[in-house]
Amino acid sequence: MNIKGFKFSAVEAAVKKPGRLDLALIFSEVPARVAAVFTTNAVKAAPVLLDEERVKCGVVRGLVVNSGNANACTGARGMDDAVETTALVSQGLGIGSEELLVSSTGVIGVPLPMERLRSAIPRLVERVGESSLGDVAAAIMTTDTFPKLESRGGVAGGVPYTVAGVAKGAGMIMPNMATMLAFIVTDAAVEPGLLQDLFRRVADTSFNSITIDGDTSTNDTALILANGAAGNPVITAGSEDAVAFESILSGVLLELAKQIVRDGEGATKFVSITVKGAASGADAKKAAMAVANSSLVKTAFFGQDANWGRIFAAVGYSGARVEQLKAELFFDDVQMVKDGLFTGGDAEARGTEVLKKKEFSVTVDLHLGSGVATVYTSDLSCDYVKINADYRT
Amino acid sequence: MNIKGFKFSAVEAAVKKPGRLDLALIFSEVPARVAAVFTTNAVKAAPVLLDEERVKCGVVRGLVVNSGNANACTGARGMDDAVETTALVSQGLGIGSEELLVSSTGVIGVPLPMERLRSAIPRLVERVGESSLGDVAAAIMTTDTFPKLESRGGVAGGVPYTVAGVAKGAGMIMPNMATMLAFIVTDAAVEPGLLQDLFRRVADTSFNSITIDGDTSTNDTALILANGAAGNPVITAGSEDAVAFESILSGVLLELAKQIVRDGEGATKFVSITVKGAASGADAKKAAMAVANSSLVKTAFFGQDANWGRIFAAVGYSGARVEQLKAELFFDDVQMVKDGLFTGGDAEARGTEVLKKKEFSVTVDLHLGSGVATVYTSDLSCDYVKINADYRT
Repeated sequence: MNIKGFKFSAVEAAVKKPGRLDLALIFSEVPARVAAVFTTNAVKAAPVLLDEERVKCGVVRGLVVNSGNANACTGARGMDDAVETTALVSQGLGIGSEELLVSSTGVIGVPLPMERLRSAIPRLVERVGESSLGDVAAAIMTTDTFPKLESRGGVAGGVPYTVAGVAKGAGMIMPNMATMLAFIVTDAAVEPGLLQDLFRRVADTSFNSITIDGDTSTNDTALILANGAAGNPVITAGSEDAVAFESILSGVLLELAKQIVRDGEGATKFVSITVKGAASGADAKKAAMAVANSSLVKTAFFGQDANWGRIFAAVGYSGARVEQLKAELFFDDVQMVKDGLFTGGDAEARGTEVLKKKEFSVTVDLHLGSGVATVYTSDLSCDYVKINADYRT
Repeated sequence: MNIKGFKFSAVEAAVKKPGRLDLALIFSEVPARVAAVFTTNAVKAAPVLLDEERVKCGVVRGLVVNSGNANACTGARGMDDAVETTALVSQGLGIGSEELLVSSTGVIGVPLPMERLRSAIPRLVERVGESSLGDVAAAIMTTDTFPKLESRGGVAGGVPYTVAGVAKGAGMIMPNMATMLAFIVTDAAVEPGLLQDLFRRVADTSFNSITIDGDTSTNDTALILANGAAGNPVITAGSEDAVAFESILSGVLLELAKQIVRDGEGATKFVSITVKGAASGADAKKAAMAVANSSLVKTAFFGQDANWGRIFAAVGYSGARVEQLKAELFFDDVQMVKDGLFTGGDAEARGTEVLKKKEFSVTVDLHLGSGVATVYTSDLSCDYVKINADYRT
């Protein structure tokens, strides 16, 4: 995989347990347009606060990221540490400190081990270009069980380009490990306003449409760097190339988002929840999220129990408009509920067969309007409880 | 325990497994003032819809309740069944059908077994006065492991009176069993407007301040009947007697609410979450509820892990205003966080000792205003998952 004009580096800085990559660099040889979305948590980690400032100018040269420590709830010292990290790396690269973003993921409330980072950063800079984006994917893992990487190619104005991305851990599924991180790089040239609009919209239907446990972390960051090194004519809003780019970008983000859900702690099921016929798109999202976050629904998935009543109850308390005698519910293509009532017959047996699958869909049709949303989630298993209860003991 | 002018009855109607009481009656010999709060779920069970109408006139004679079947998501037939149940009982009692309320709790989506109810109702009516309020508490249990009953006495205008209540299962903690039900009776005479105001306010700091799993059921009902049979001068708003009555009522409801949390499925801990210093009371409640509903916080409680970072993160995403460098956090009286930062020293060890207790408190002080709220919750254990995954298999 070649994303023109991007170089990568990943080293061991001993922030995590020895023997694992935990410090990585994404570097663009030329200034890259940046677009980003950050956590909505009012408690934000230092790197999130710093990046929120630095992305404002719209152009950066790269990103340094560590795993094993979230640099969250670390106060003024945390901000100093984030600034120093970018200063050391940018000096080595010969770029301005404000041109470099920084991310952290791991334990909350513990200061970054700066001595270790200071001693590892020279190696990180030296090795630029010797690592792959796959190494970056490995370096940002915490309790993830596999690296998350996705790449797709496109053509704009006859010139081929690549969109590739890496991600880690969904929501706050990690025990005291904050964070979903996703870093996307593309060598396509994209108009800055279009890049931000597209990224926000696509993040909404991918990363913002997954939930493992409903806990929003302090460090969530998703960003894209577009350096134009492919040499394509700049992709502009309203063009056919823009439509194609959105589709490719959406494919990369959605695949990374789904990988995160499949790697949810203790997850044994991958479930797509679609609510359609809602009074509005916002209502559809609210209802789908309520179903996806319900502990009772998720334990029923784990137990392979076609318990549609729990799903109905969650839709009911979601805040979305519901007229219960209009609603329908399906497990894959098995209709469980029509006009608000159980369909009876062999629906129970056939629904149970669907829930025995590793992946299946739940569809609720409210028959009130045209609002539709899909959310991806996992089940709630005994292992989830064990992993999160035992983490620090 | 004698609550003047009230008679009780409880029989076996075979809605639940044989050998267990499952049909009960609360009957007032004279018309009783009624105040009630119902589920906010948009999907409401038939008995909730019927009672919402019937409490509007402000006076009723009693309540018939079955367990084992929620009569929820049962459409027009469910409403016919609820109406018929009250008609049969009220005919037996010689009162008007519209003077009788009805409640149901149990499985969602299955019609009431009306043949069994029709054959049991004559016995229910015959036995009025032969059962106790404790028998009613037993008859409304589903997966509850103990009956929930509380009684307190007061004096108004020199005349003694009693406030007593029964309750069952919190939120939708029951597998496919909808419902929290709470029925309070008092022989005190209380001004109707005051009764409704007090009941709503007190329900807010008791039943509406507990959560087991964040799932709001389709059948939640809490109501009070006040028949005035004690013979006290009517308690009016603004009087000292009103203050005393509120305190007694609050004590009964809070104790019932706490019993529900202690009997939460799989619960091994009883935790009081207080958020104070919030910008508003609503902010305090939002933040406390977010903490109490966080799967990560609840698994940490189960694991006896003094994981304050998860609590901080939950407060951060709750929607409440937070300035992280002002916040403090305590486990009982052990201060874990000051000015948004970990206090260090032996706080970790001392905090862990607190979490080993069966009951403890978490206090978050946001230092932004005077908003305060307390919420009661349980932990999230492996048993919770097992009970809810295995229920129908």
